[in-house]
Amino acid sequence: MRDCFELRATDGMARVGRLTVPRAGVTVETPALMPVINPNIQTISPRRLHEEFGAEILITNSYIIRKTEDLHERALEEGLHEMLDFPGAIVTDSGSFQLAEYGEIDTNTSEILQFQHDIGSDIGTPVDIPTPPDVSHERAARELDRTETALADAAEVETGEMLVNAPVQGSTHLDLREEAGAHAAATDLDVFPVGAIVPLLNAYRYDDMVEVTAAAKRGLHADCPVHLFGAGHPMMFAQAAAVGCDLFDSAAYALYARDDRYLTVRGTEQLDDLSYLPCPCPTCTDHDPDSLRALNNREREEALAAHNLHVTFAEIRRVRQAIREGSLLELVEERARAHPKSADGFRSLLDQAEQLEASDRVSKGTFFYTSPESARRPEVLRHHERLNRLETPETVLLSQFGAPEDHDYDAVWRLKPPFGPFPSSLSESYPLNAELPDTLEDAAYVAAADGVASLVEANPETTFTVGHDDWPAAALNAVPEGVETEDLSELGE
Amino acid sequence: MRDCFELRATDGMARVGRLTVPRAGVTVETPALMPVINPNIQTISPRRLHEEFGAEILITNSYIIRKTEDLHERALEEGLHEMLDFPGAIVTDSGSFQLAEYGEIDTNTSEILQFQHDIGSDIGTPVDIPTPPDVSHERAARELDRTETALADAAEVETGEMLVNAPVQGSTHLDLREEAGAHAAATDLDVFPVGAIVPLLNAYRYDDMVEVTAAAKRGLHADCPVHLFGAGHPMMFAQAAAVGCDLFDSAAYALYARDDRYLTVRGTEQLDDLSYLPCPCPTCTDHDPDSLRALNNREREEALAAHNLHVTFAEIRRVRQAIREGSLLELVEERARAHPKSADGFRSLLDQAEQLEASDRVSKGTFFYTSPESARRPEVLRHHERLNRLETPETVLLSQFGAPEDHDYDAVWRLKPPFGPFPSSLSESYPLNAELPDTLEDAAYVAAADGVASLVEANPETTFTVGHDDWPAAALNAVPEGVETEDLSELGE
Repeated sequence: MRDCFELRATDGMARVGRLTVPRAGVTVETPALMPVINPNIQTISPRRLHEEFGAEILITNSYIIRKTEDLHERALEEGLHEMLDFPGAIVTDSGSFQLAEYGEIDTNTSEILQFQHDIGSDIGTPVDIPTPPDVSHERAARELDRTETALADAAEVETGEMLVNAPVQGSTHLDLREEAGAHAAATDLDVFPVGAIVPLLNAYRYDDMVEVTAAAKRGLHADCPVHLFGAGHPMMFAQAAAVGCDLFDSAAYALYARDDRYLTVRGTEQLDDLSYLPCPCPTCTDHDPDSLRALNNREREEALAAHNLHVTFAEIRRVRQAIREGSLLELVEERARAHPKSADGFRSLLDQAEQLEASDRVSKGTFFYTSPESARRPEVLRHHERLNRLETPETVLLSQFGAPEDHDYDAVWRLKPPFGPFPSSLSESYPLNAELPDTLEDAAYVAAADGVASLVEANPETTFTVGHDDWPAAALNAVPEGVETEDLSELGE
Repeated sequence: MRDCFELRATDGMARVGRLTVPRAGVTVETPALMPVINPNIQTISPRRLHEEFGAEILITNSYIIRKTEDLHERALEEGLHEMLDFPGAIVTDSGSFQLAEYGEIDTNTSEILQFQHDIGSDIGTPVDIPTPPDVSHERAARELDRTETALADAAEVETGEMLVNAPVQGSTHLDLREEAGAHAAATDLDVFPVGAIVPLLNAYRYDDMVEVTAAAKRGLHADCPVHLFGAGHPMMFAQAAAVGCDLFDSAAYALYARDDRYLTVRGTEQLDDLSYLPCPCPTCTDHDPDSLRALNNREREEALAAHNLHVTFAEIRRVRQAIREGSLLELVEERARAHPKSADGFRSLLDQAEQLEASDRVSKGTFFYTSPESARRPEVLRHHERLNRLETPETVLLSQFGAPEDHDYDAVWRLKPPFGPFPSSLSESYPLNAELPDTLEDAAYVAAADGVASLVEANPETTFTVGHDDWPAAALNAVPEGVETEDLSELGE
């Protein structure tokens, strides 16, 4: 057990947790956003991030500090917390990004991790190799070896109470991501950044982000806090949390503000394209687009950065609340409908339904069926698996409409898309008490038929009849042979 | 032409407009939210609504004022604007709600409208009959007659510069709603509340709300500003705006606050159920749930009302921005995925695709395909209708993958789900430059096949070949007989 990380609530692979950062003497609630602080340019001061925005943790770059003479000296002398004036936890990056960008850097894991320790970092980072997407398996494997060597080097450094990151690489090769996750989890290191995701996010490859992260998670353990390195746009927090990410970092709030870009959970807008400020944050209730545009550059950048932070932190809170309620997949779906590529990511997430199901909790609020994708949720899968274990008497009617007035069946079970059959006594339990729309897509009926097939397989001696509501051909075709089907829709009127 | 209402931008049936209220000397941008002011209990003062929340218009009840002795006197003496201390436009209701609730009231249209004029109302209301949903056609028609008599009575009152509401009733009978709309539009009255919608909204019958409103709109003219009377929850503004509503009124912000209910665009939460405040508004950035719960009753009610107003006004601005961008249907879809019954409403909205198409604009930003419902959008319908008018040479390949290297076709057109075929020269124009996800549902291919059918019908002399990407059977079946189909998916690799 990693005792720095405690799970408080789960929803599929998502979790609300507490990351204890001993060197900072603080506990950080996750999912958490770590604002990125450029030690040379502070759009919003760390003190203000803490007091006004509630930031419990931030991330800065030890490599830049080490290379910048006066910062180097001040950091060693005062320590990072005093230099940045931030009372929460401080994570430091190592220069891996610069290594990937420029091909070489003049440090190594042992040295830079020691430096991170010496300047008072709370969570340090070795020099891993952020292998980009789509490279050959051979290159990804070779570079992963170097990352794993860096983790071994890190384990040798005397880091005291400082936690240490164990980055998980492997490019877009899922086998390598899983292997890298398992390797990292087997070290004594503490926090697990899934690395080199930024090129995927920049290309809107949310489906690949989901697959790569799910692969890494298969290798990692439940007690591993996972950081989706470089992911800071609020439009993807729900999706990333749903695949098990606990930490995000945002440079976007400041970088975008510099370019007059305005973050929303639905995507990014250019300030010049806005006729209204579609947000209730303090910046957007104090201004309109014209008054923002009229500010001088420095003031406008600060105001936009404050807006960007407000929506970003609010989305983190919304994700946490959804996990507590067990409604995260519904939030993911809403966000997914904002962009075609987010919709691809949502579908990829549901392709991992088995992995989601394995860590899903048993009871939540109410299951909302909101689209055909709802038929692929882990709750539906779990019900189908359970049907395999239920026993039935000799003759059973599975009915969408309760029992007919006169009948000779030994039992009448309920039949409810997308779940399928269940004894009436379970009608009020999660997820079978789901709220459905009046109109369902074929996918919901096909899923119900799959449920029938699962029950039939477990009870070959029983004679089943399916009493349905004018099912489409695709669903009727999915009912196993030998099961009688009857359109009972008249009973529903 | 009603010169009090000017359209500035449209998106389907939705519009951004300017309602000029001559008696108040103000112009109100629509869609607009009118906070409901109970003259006896003010949770948030009208002055604060104006200055802090940007309310340009509010609504209060002249019947209550008339019945409350001191208010009656003060209103006649000072006038509503001074009494309420509100510099924007003031709408007054007539007591119709009380009539529906208690069976009778001691006033009539002539008297109460005169009173509204005398106290300085800017938009007055006759005593219409809010017929509930699902009553017999006969009762709905009979009560509609009485409403129409009230409109005639209203036209007789000397109301000077005051605008007058012409409520549109008719219960859930679509023919009556349409007739009522046409009758109201033919009067000289000014603003058009669609009435008795609240019972539908309370029962989450969003599909019926959409159908009833669409029917009323078929009778009304484009220059009629439409008020969805009693609709104030931000979760349905996008859907209601999409079916052509311009004005909303909210008592919810205050009533819900009294019961510790917290509005969001995804639904309503109980304060006690919140572990986090999932919102960036000033209330939610200054508090956490515990600090809100610790406030005394009056302070907590005020803080929650402020939050409720902030999210409500922000959603109005988001809807306006989406209309300007031409992305309202995408916002409607996102909101629709928050609740099964909203999803029903969204489907009902797309059932009105022809009506949406008739007032849709030609060019917008980028069409985002985000779910199978996208295949039913008015832009797809419009393209199919246009295909009917395009001429083709003797042999044409409709190809999802451009032209093969060697071919003898007279022309090669593009084929793009969900639109169908078009000449390559149109590839970059709206909506054919749509962004698609990597994975499409059958509905998108079937819609493309419908497009093929439309083009084939207009050009019976042409020999068409469909070069597709491994289409599902449902789409291949929708291709007209005599058209050859060829799986060209290899070209796409």
